[in-house]
Amino acid sequence: DSKLKIFTCNSNPKLAGQIADYIGIPMGESHTTSFSDGEIQVKLSESVRGCHVYIIQSTCAPVNDNLMELLVMVDALKRASAKSINVVIPYYGYARQDRKARSRDPITAKLVANLIEKAGAHRVIAMDLHAMQIQGFFDIPVDHLLGVPILAQYFRSKQIENPVVVSPDHGGVVRARKLADLLSAPLAIIDKRRPEPNVSEVMNIIGNIEGKTAILVDDIIDTAGTIVLGANALIEGGVKEVYACCTHPVLSGPAMDRLENSPLKEVIVTDTIPITHPNPTSKLKVLSVAPLMGEAIIRVHEELSISKLFEIE
Amino acid sequence: DSKLKIFTCNSNPKLAGQIADYIGIPMGESHTTSFSDGEIQVKLSESVRGCHVYIIQSTCAPVNDNLMELLVMVDALKRASAKSINVVIPYYGYARQDRKARSRDPITAKLVANLIEKAGAHRVIAMDLHAMQIQGFFDIPVDHLLGVPILAQYFRSKQIENPVVVSPDHGGVVRARKLADLLSAPLAIIDKRRPEPNVSEVMNIIGNIEGKTAILVDDIIDTAGTIVLGANALIEGGVKEVYACCTHPVLSGPAMDRLENSPLKEVIVTDTIPITHPNPTSKLKVLSVAPLMGEAIIRVHEELSISKLFEIE
Ligand SMILES: Nc1ncnc2c1ncn2[C@@H]1O[C@H](COP(=O)(O)O)[C@@H](O)[C@H]1O
Ligand SMILES: Nc1ncnc2c1ncn2[C@@H]1O[C@H](COP(=O)(O)O)[C@@H](O)[C@H]1O
Repeated sequence: DSKLKIFTCNSNPKLAGQIADYIGIPMGESHTTSFSDGEIQVKLSESVRGCHVYIIQSTCAPVNDNLMELLVMVDALKRASAKSINVVIPYYGYARQDRKARSRDPITAKLVANLIEKAGAHRVIAMDLHAMQIQGFFDIPVDHLLGVPILAQYFRSKQIENPVVVSPDHGGVVRARKLADLLSAPLAIIDKRRPEPNVSEVMNIIGNIEGKTAILVDDIIDTAGTIVLGANALIEGGVKEVYACCTHPVLSGPAMDRLENSPLKEVIVTDTIPITHPNPTSKLKVLSVAPLMGEAIIRVHEELSISKLFEIE
Repeated sequence: DSKLKIFTCNSNPKLAGQIADYIGIPMGESHTTSFSDGEIQVKLSESVRGCHVYIIQSTCAPVNDNLMELLVMVDALKRASAKSINVVIPYYGYARQDRKARSRDPITAKLVANLIEKAGAHRVIAMDLHAMQIQGFFDIPVDHLLGVPILAQYFRSKQIENPVVVSPDHGGVVRARKLADLLSAPLAIIDKRRPEPNVSEVMNIIGNIEGKTAILVDDIIDTAGTIVLGANALIEGGVKEVYACCTHPVLSGPAMDRLENSPLKEVIVTDTIPITHPNPTSKLKVLSVAPLMGEAIIRVHEELSISKLFEIE
């Protein structure tokens, strides 16, 4: 029976530590630093020979540094004779570059999958990939975890009266449907249409929202433009209050200011990406994915099904 | 007869422009930018279908960003049906991580070679790779250019009297030998030895340097520690003057200050890496590799031997 070891790089050491705590093993000793010229240096301070190793690393910003840390760590573990290298990627960067949206576009989400495999990974554990098809970009097994049950748990415990779950666009309906099911709530969809080119978008709300408490849900909140416009449209449409939630708080550029100045009551996110903003809005509530990821690692290591993790309690 | 096109990303646009000028074609139109969250976005603004494309990109600092730009560009060109993708890497980052110097080290120079191939490159043109063995890390053809003839040209035109070429360590003797041959000058070697652990190194100079003008040569000047200690040892050993030269001016951390405050008379480098320091020392002289690289691209495209490029004029 082979040994389980957990390693991490620099993207999200707090989450990694909590996952190791959940599993009940110490974090594997390694140091990922930079040389004077910025090149990444990975030092493994303990043997991994014959071990099943899990590397926890989000490819959030600085995305290229975090991706390269992951790849160099995989390379080091491979050459140090780890028995299997399992890459746990709470937030998978470049997931939105998942198709040729315009001619001559790269498909960087596929490139990243190829790089991770080529480096030597044997398995991926990911969470709320922007497009489910990214699983198919890999030729190795991908276990895909969902954040919606964690978000649902929060809203259930808040006992929100008369809720309606709202998808901010047509792309997010399946996710919103799942949250609505878990909360036994109705569903609404924001339908954006540009009546003519160079005329600003009009937002129609499909579904009954009047007097209800809206819960906007998305996989990623990046610049927060979509979610704040959605919140404004919902308020205009007559909701009582609006909450927003997502799995991955990318929160780049103007995001934090936009959330702070929005009519949103709370913004519920998870810790797949650490909040690094020096002055985060008090509307943010961060839920931990550590128990989910820890349980997934245990189950994968013990060769048990992980589908149990998504069952509604 | 297929069309030659040149593209570049953001590491070294000036050199890329000069190479395109040398070849006598306009730079291919593309835009490599970032999204709000720092993810790289590559846009090709012209067709490359059926073209032989050369991408000019050094993987100098910020090394992970520059490497990822290169990989995404290769991915975009591949999906846009370029006939061949030729990667021109004036400075190949991570080249010093070329072996397991300590147990459990990664071999990042090999990892990078794998990533470039996996992205879809068909050929590499590189220059003064830190270790010649890196050519063997690729399964695609690698054309390897040398900077020493360009450096030799400069010193010949200066007509330095009574020169001696000095290798700063045993690893650089082959390169120094080549420069000495081109200048018809004798060779000396700095021999570093640590008499006991935790005692500072002693520098012995092997060869006759008294009263001569020393020319220190290396492939990379990074923090400039080695080269400045070498210069001091040479001065103590009785040389008249010391010049330093290298192909790749990495110049990280304290390098610029060290060079400025050293007894070095001049520091001759090439433009494989742009000088980005806000206040570079006036000792720096930058020679261009654009004619060499341009000529190499023309010859590779016309399927001619490139060995002619290294002949002594
Ligand atoms: N990091 C990013 N930030 C903003 N937009 C992106 C990013 N990566 C990809 N995109 C764009 O987002 C779109 C895909 O998003 P979606 O339609 O929601 O799947 C494409 O048009 C991409 O060009
Ligand atoms: N970017 C870097 N900066 C400084 N040292 C490095 C870098 N990359 C690798 N090294 C170290 O440099 C040594 C290899 O240099 P060399 O012996 O000159 O080939 C190894 O011990 C590496 O750990």
